[in-house]
Amino acid sequence: MSETYTASVIGGTGFTGGELLRLLAGHPNFEIEQATSRSKANKTVGYSHPNLRELDLRFSSPDDLESVDVLFAATPHGVSMEQIDEFDEVADTIVDLSADFRLNTAEQYEEWYDGHSAPEYLEESVYALPELTRDQLPGADLIASGGCNAASTILGLKPLFDADILSGDEQIVADVKVGSSEGGAGGGDASSHPERSGVVRPYAPTGHRHEAEIEQFLGVSLSFTVHAVDMTRGSSATCHVFPGEPVSKGDLWSAYRESYEDEPFVRLVAGGGGVYRYPEPKAVTGTNMAEVGFELDPGNKRLVAFSAIDNMMKGSAGQAIHGTNIALGLDETAGLDFQGLHPVGAP
Amino acid sequence: MSETYTASVIGGTGFTGGELLRLLAGHPNFEIEQATSRSKANKTVGYSHPNLRELDLRFSSPDDLESVDVLFAATPHGVSMEQIDEFDEVADTIVDLSADFRLNTAEQYEEWYDGHSAPEYLEESVYALPELTRDQLPGADLIASGGCNAASTILGLKPLFDADILSGDEQIVADVKVGSSEGGAGGGDASSHPERSGVVRPYAPTGHRHEAEIEQFLGVSLSFTVHAVDMTRGSSATCHVFPGEPVSKGDLWSAYRESYEDEPFVRLVAGGGGVYRYPEPKAVTGTNMAEVGFELDPGNKRLVAFSAIDNMMKGSAGQAIHGTNIALGLDETAGLDFQGLHPVGAP
Amino acid sequence: MSETYTASVIGGTGFTGGELLRLLAGHPNFEIEQATSRSKANKTVGYSHPNLRELDLRFSSPDDLESVDVLFAATPHGVSMEQIDEFDEVADTIVDLSADFRLNTAEQYEEWYDGHSAPEYLEESVYALPELTRDQLPGADLIASGGCNAASTILGLKPLFDADILSGDEQIVADVKVGSSEGGAGGGDASSHPERSGVVRPYAPTGHRHEAEIEQFLGVSLSFTVHAVDMTRGSSATCHVFPGEPVSKGDLWSAYRESYEDEPFVRLVAGGGGVYRYPEPKAVTGTNMAEVGFELDPGNKRLVAFSAIDNMMKGSAGQAIHGTNIALGLDETAGLDFQGLHPVGAP
Amino acid sequence: MSETYTASVIGGTGFTGGELLRLLAGHPNFEIEQATSRSKANKTVGYSHPNLRELDLRFSSPDDLESVDVLFAATPHGVSMEQIDEFDEVADTIVDLSADFRLNTAEQYEEWYDGHSAPEYLEESVYALPELTRDQLPGADLIASGGCNAASTILGLKPLFDADILSGDEQIVADVKVGSSEGGAGGGDASSHPERSGVVRPYAPTGHRHEAEIEQFLGVSLSFTVHAVDMTRGSSATCHVFPGEPVSKGDLWSAYRESYEDEPFVRLVAGGGGVYRYPEPKAVTGTNMAEVGFELDPGNKRLVAFSAIDNMMKGSAGQAIHGTNIALGLDETAGLDFQGLHPVGAP
Repeated sequence: MSETYTASVIGGTGFTGGELLRLLAGHPNFEIEQATSRSKANKTVGYSHPNLRELDLRFSSPDDLESVDVLFAATPHGVSMEQIDEFDEVADTIVDLSADFRLNTAEQYEEWYDGHSAPEYLEESVYALPELTRDQLPGADLIASGGCNAASTILGLKPLFDADILSGDEQIVADVKVGSSEGGAGGGDASSHPERSGVVRPYAPTGHRHEAEIEQFLGVSLSFTVHAVDMTRGSSATCHVFPGEPVSKGDLWSAYRESYEDEPFVRLVAGGGGVYRYPEPKAVTGTNMAEVGFELDPGNKRLVAFSAIDNMMKGSAGQAIHGTNIALGLDETAGLDFQGLHPVGAP
Repeated sequence: MSETYTASVIGGTGFTGGELLRLLAGHPNFEIEQATSRSKANKTVGYSHPNLRELDLRFSSPDDLESVDVLFAATPHGVSMEQIDEFDEVADTIVDLSADFRLNTAEQYEEWYDGHSAPEYLEESVYALPELTRDQLPGADLIASGGCNAASTILGLKPLFDADILSGDEQIVADVKVGSSEGGAGGGDASSHPERSGVVRPYAPTGHRHEAEIEQFLGVSLSFTVHAVDMTRGSSATCHVFPGEPVSKGDLWSAYRESYEDEPFVRLVAGGGGVYRYPEPKAVTGTNMAEVGFELDPGNKRLVAFSAIDNMMKGSAGQAIHGTNIALGLDETAGLDFQGLHPVGAP
Repeated sequence: MSETYTASVIGGTGFTGGELLRLLAGHPNFEIEQATSRSKANKTVGYSHPNLRELDLRFSSPDDLESVDVLFAATPHGVSMEQIDEFDEVADTIVDLSADFRLNTAEQYEEWYDGHSAPEYLEESVYALPELTRDQLPGADLIASGGCNAASTILGLKPLFDADILSGDEQIVADVKVGSSEGGAGGGDASSHPERSGVVRPYAPTGHRHEAEIEQFLGVSLSFTVHAVDMTRGSSATCHVFPGEPVSKGDLWSAYRESYEDEPFVRLVAGGGGVYRYPEPKAVTGTNMAEVGFELDPGNKRLVAFSAIDNMMKGSAGQAIHGTNIALGLDETAGLDFQGLHPVGAP
Repeated sequence: MSETYTASVIGGTGFTGGELLRLLAGHPNFEIEQATSRSKANKTVGYSHPNLRELDLRFSSPDDLESVDVLFAATPHGVSMEQIDEFDEVADTIVDLSADFRLNTAEQYEEWYDGHSAPEYLEESVYALPELTRDQLPGADLIASGGCNAASTILGLKPLFDADILSGDEQIVADVKVGSSEGGAGGGDASSHPERSGVVRPYAPTGHRHEAEIEQFLGVSLSFTVHAVDMTRGSSATCHVFPGEPVSKGDLWSAYRESYEDEPFVRLVAGGGGVYRYPEPKAVTGTNMAEVGFELDPGNKRLVAFSAIDNMMKGSAGQAIHGTNIALGLDETAGLDFQGLHPVGAP
């Protein structure tokens, strides 16, 4: 319980790196050793992340990696696979937040991304969405934190498969809305405020790479479209599905409760009164919570499943910490107890 | 060409009423006679609509209606049907922007709204989406301006039916995103800025009333879900459809061009480079233009049709003026030539 | 340290009430007894505050107040003074978040608000901005949590008086920008999303009531103007002042450090590189931290002091908890350790 | 009246260049000849400016300039002065939207910017804010369109000098709030949506270059601070001034009316009821209108003057067209009649 692990973050200036540093700094079982950045080496962490100005830490050069218990890699896709042997030397546990180790085989990776330079690690890596992979996480040496849009979509749909409401042959349309932090700390013209504010922009109309993860874990193919909307954090998935057999609201409540009743980070929101009646990113900003819910459209034999997460948390850094807590045998909610804010503006 | 018609607006303080007044004030063939408001009678129009401070006009009591050529009713659903006989007495042409006269029969109206108190007018009313009803508009006495989300959805899907890419038996999912002006000038708690800013909120998960119009005009049933997102103006429809036969991009370009090549207010945006590659509400803010486009997802035999309009314009007041121009035999683009702004924030 | 106090919140459905409940729920020394609401009695707290859905608590009628150690009143101005005797009976310590007990005399109150119905309590009440009143707080029975715009302004200016850079005779202009949560959970037309989004609106050009608090605590009169801007949380004060004697940056660093070096909730941000170079509300969203900083304009003999807080936290509920921690002899940072998020959208 | 001039725009991909193209395309007296861009040569104008997709025009290389009647230069500061001789050869009238020809002398320019390479043009250039320089514009060969923050500030203050309410010796504090389009189409990290949304950011705390223009035209020194806030378009200036003699609201109404009663693009907004009681950028989005107004703070002997413009219009491209209309003897409002939208989101 009072055990302490040393941890470092590779890629500390990015949004995900910053979120990891925030969570590690407030985590009872971690002590931050290093945060790396080539361009900002020797600058304070607060230079990049204004919320962390009280953190007494400067960025280290990535060339000066020291040994740690846990190494978190928050680098762009393709970087970790190149450096995985080096990471392996300095750390007991590696937690990678890129897509490099999420898929099972090099063939899958090549289909959606590019050639894989360290395929031998793919088999041992464990995907970090605990609602799917809790049993495989304890003792894992290489953890692959999942994609944000994959997380929101999977969490909304999973109970329907668990409860055999869907068999996998049905049409599934996932229409996802995401915030601007998904574009990362750099971003291009399309991420500039004048061009990005107030948008409803089909930024991955088809072929979004997170499809690969969803298909791998749900075992089904689905129709996946991602829109950019005006928020900073958040991934909201609306899944339109068509069960072969009629299904009642009671069936759905049972299914979702069954799948998630012991999950500390999933909350059911399905109807009721007031302003917040279905899952919304605003309600989970800054937290590791996923909201999931549903509605029926009997006339069209349709079921709509909603889910909402903070893409930086449940969709990335929070998920990574959650998975690591389980891997190390810690309290799985450690460091993840922030309840979120109300009201909050654009998440 | 230089003919001038007198026009009044019932419900002048609402957002739609204000937009009508703006368009009429800048229209070469109209002269504003009255704008009514019970609560703001005798106040200037600029009191409610700051962009119209230069307009030398005060709100009239709705009890003092004068005769005009064209009467625009921008009142909540259910009001026009109660007053339609009165409107008929004072005006040659009535243009109603509520849902009261959009559907063909009292039965349909009752199914989606409530009992209809003036069903005898339903048959003669002409729906104002000219891309659908241009032939019926000339000489129309009662024009029913369509719903914003119906307009965006219909415009995105229509070419697929025109070109027999869809037959009507296929699954159609329309996932719509709308701005806060749809809630009107009043709005409740859910429309307050702290609760409404930055949302992705499933506000009509199923059963949205605009479904009735879409089904009436496309002749098919569809799965329809509306989300509130952070913009003021805009309705963006993403339609996920599954054609029975394989379809190519060339087929789609042909279909959309065929349907819209002579339409002054529909623009094709489908791929290409730069920041704006698919339809977006930001690109049409303040204009009567609809952007439509598409993308293919061959692996899932899916076609995604996108469309984006300004809900206050092409989805409401602009559509009404467009329809009225045609009804009166005017240049159909008269008063609707604003090109929109770049950049613009939340539309 | 492990002492636990019972606490109730009067006015639990409002934004400030919700923020208090959030903080109390996460506070190691408090146990929530009741949250009152007349209109929402028996509904769950999560009905009003979606971030608190995990809190196992329903609103109580304000008529059923039970005895507690600490009673937090988050009611509109004028309510607490009417009920203060009742509050006094049920609680050892009363913490009022309205303006009712902030000013020293009934005359002052009447000048800025209205007649005061419980003036006998004014003398004993202690203002809760610990950077000003830390010495008076221990043991206080009636704590008056200060106004948000007063807090941001006072914190930005205080070091200049502490260090005698200002004497009180100089011209001081405070130009303040605030978020929409200041309008409360109700709000009127001006708070509706379509009218409120994207504004720069002079909502209190002159005569804002927080002036009274600032003048009481700084002992000077100042020129105070408040603008509404597009954020949900936040109060940012830019104070333009004109010291009689030339002042250097070194003098300013010394002054601000001197005033705040032992303060756990004040952070200096004055120049340097990167994106966040001066105080900003975004950097403190959800935290009890105040950012303060300054810049010199030697050509105009002007000094600009900046400060930024979250109006719901350092400007209200966080300040109240901070003051209460000190009053009860607890660790003053207890329950207030959230570090904020980066990036975060509209705060 | 029906005369037509050819016009080209140098720097057509930028925000200001796009706004000029939009205005010229809708202007009854102009025909667009070329829009230049080195990087986007041969791409359609709609590639950069989605609102201009109907414009049948492709960017030209800046090396292929053809002769025109009027050349608009919308290039970054420092470019026009290098190319002014070349511009002079191809065009009868040059309208420069950068700062290059706004100041009277090379010394002034060097003080605020850098060395000036074409000082011989400074004397003949005419500043394009017609409310200041209408008499000098007819026949001007070189027009220097003013800075946006200078325009908003000058327009708010000018009546106070015209009416001798201010003499020039008083303290003047101008606290300005601007939108993200001021950063231009490129922008850096600070302009990315995640970092820029929801801000109140002191981006030019002191030393903003538009001070030079204000001081040149008002003949006084002032304290000038610019904040970035969450809108795309807009410059809102709040000027806090301290008249030596007491002044009444009636005096102010007289002064502002006197200065602006014949001005087609200035509107007085000072109190009254409703939501929009003082000048706001939202109310003028997309228009060439300036809103100006005021409030008194008798207790502090202060007068607050407010003004609000669209920085892309009255603050830049609209001002340039307005000035050019006058220079060429056209109707001065030609092409500038758009009335703005209500509601509109972030301007």
